Order: sequence, then C-alpha cells, then structure tokens
Amino acid sequence: MSATGTQHHNETRIVADPALPTIVITREFDAPPERVFRAYTDPDLVVRWLGPRRLTMWIERYDARSGGSYRYVHREDDGTEYGFHGVFHEVRPDERIVQTFTFEGFPDGVSLETAVFEDLGGRTRVTTTSLMGSIEDRDAMISSGMEGGLREGYERLDELLDGGRSDSADRHTDREMTS
Amino acid sequence: MSATGTQHHNETRIVADPALPTIVITREFDAPPERVFRAYTDPDLVVRWLGPRRLTMWIERYDARSGGSYRYVHREDDGTEYGFHGVFHEVRPDERIVQTFTFEGFPDGVSLETAVFEDLGGRTRVTTTSLMGSIEDRDAMISSGMEGGLREGYERLDELLDGGRSDSADRHTDREMTS
Repeated sequence: MSATGTQHHNETRIVADPALPTIVITREFDAPPERVFRAYTDPDLVVRWLGPRRLTMWIERYDARSGGSYRYVHREDDGTEYGFHGVFHEVRPDERIVQTFTFEGFPDGVSLETAVFEDLGGRTRVTTTSLMGSIEDRDAMISSGMEGGLREGYERLDELLDGGRSDSADRHTDREMTS
Repeated sequence: MSATGTQHHNETRIVADPALPTIVITREFDAPPERVFRAYTDPDLVVRWLGPRRLTMWIERYDARSGGSYRYVHREDDGTEYGFHGVFHEVRPDERIVQTFTFEGFPDGVSLETAVFEDLGGRTRVTTTSLMGSIEDRDAMISSGMEGGLREGYERLDELLDGGRSDSADRHTDREMTS
C-alpha cells in the first residue's frame, strides 16, 4: 500500500483492556512528532488521510486548539453520510491532543480520546486511548469494523508523510508538509 | 443548612462502581429542570453555588453551550487557588450537559462529566457521571475530599433555587431565577 517500504515496523496495535472501557491504539510513523502532529491538526492535511479510502471526507470545521471544536462528514459513493463532532479539550503542540468524539448516528454516545506523540528520534509513536462509558459501548465500537478504516487511514498518513519528506517531484505536497 | 426543609428527600448519593472508573452522583432538587439547568449554565448563578462555602469562586469564562469552554478558580482565604477548566461537548437545554474537566493541579488528568436532568414533575433529579482514565484516578478523586464540597455545593444550590421560587422579599434573586 505505502511507498515507504517500512510497513513492517509500522504496525497498528489495537488493545481492548478486559477491565477498562478503553481502546488503546499504538502506531509508529516515519516522521518526527512535529510533522505527524501537523497532519493531525491542520484540516488541509487531516482531510487527506483520516478514514478509509472509499469514503470522501468533508470538513465543516476543524479548529484544533485547546477549546476549539470540530465536525466532519464521511460520505459513501451512494451518498450515505456519517457525521462526527466533538471539542478539543487540549491541544499541546507536538505532544498531546485530548478531544471528545461523537458519531452522530448514536448522538448520546461520547468518548474521550487522548493522543500522545512520542519522539523516537526522527520517528514518532502515537498512542491513542479512547475512553468510553461502558465495556458494552467499547465492545460495540470494536465490532463496528473500526479496525479496517483505522489501519487504512494510517497507511494514507504514511503516504502523506512520505510525500512530504522525500525530495520528490510533488512540490505541492512537499511545501505543505515542511512549511 | 437549607431553608427549604426538604433535605430528607434531597440526599446526595455517590456511587463508585467497582468495575468501572466512574463516579455517579445523584441528587434531587425542589425545582423544575429548566430552573436547575439554568443554575448550572448561567455563570451569574453558577458562581453562587458551585463548591464549598469557604472558597471564593472566580469565573474567568463559562460559555455553557455546545462547543464552548470554561475556566474558574476556587480561592481559599489564605490566597491558595485551585483552577479548573474544560470544554462543553454538548449542552442540550433542560436535559443534558457533557463536558470535560481538568483540575489544574494535575494538568494531564481529564474526566468526562455527563449531567442528565430528569423531570420528576416540578422537581428534578440530576445524575452526574464522571468518567476517568483509570480506577486509580477515580479512587484518588474520591479520597480527595470531593464529597464534602459536593454536598455543600448542592445545599447552596437548594438555597438559591428556594430563594428564586418563593415570593420572598429577595426580589433580586427572584428576578434572576425566573426571567
């Protein structure tokens, strides 16, 4: 999938704690924290990787700063739409994002998502913890098929980061990722 | 404490689930949901009841609408300050408030707080669920002495609601609560 050839050590680990209503997702990326963080917070970049390839993403707002809010829609080819929204509790540059998350198909469901960016020396480990209201809600999330979309999204992010890093002909991408 | 004489059925119940990192607090009030909800969302009212009596509350911002944020400080007589902040994920009038909550003495700690307002026919039951990242964090919160401040705050809210309901000489309070 990715052109980086480094998928072997960039595996996505998804752990559902038996005793806590959490999902902990760990993934490494071949780019330093500031570039990965930017891909998580700049809506012009987020729109290029978040979610599975088959869906078109439309961002209504993505104000990734402490106290900001976001809403986006993933759209199937047949027009079916999935809306998501939440607020950013904390956005600590290159280190940490804490946000709430609601899938609008289940409007009373809310999870608290914490992403921590660790510097591995030019590479980055992102650990994302989703905290839900019950073990049942967590298990329903796991069963919803989130895993495929998540892995595919991370592969798209690999490609975006790779395009930005390499001194390729894609000057547009290069500029976006390094400015 | 309260002048309402109804404390016997307005008990504060605090339940720590052994299996989930939550605290569930249940309290009834002698006022309809719209008045209790207003006391939770109008900063001019919040400042009059939230927290124990000995502390002075100062509100920096309290923008209680979906996507809004808040910050306030509780101050001891000796000048010691305790800051708190978060964002409002959802504010659904007279029904539901979902917000994040951080005590700034422990800046990486975040809880997700959901308050649900139930109409008991002129009275209101408020059920507040605090969801934390671990059982240990939850137990630390319980051990912190939150309970005393919580009960005292609710008693102050009883008094505020009672002042607003009764056709008392306190016209100022009456106006604030019914407009």
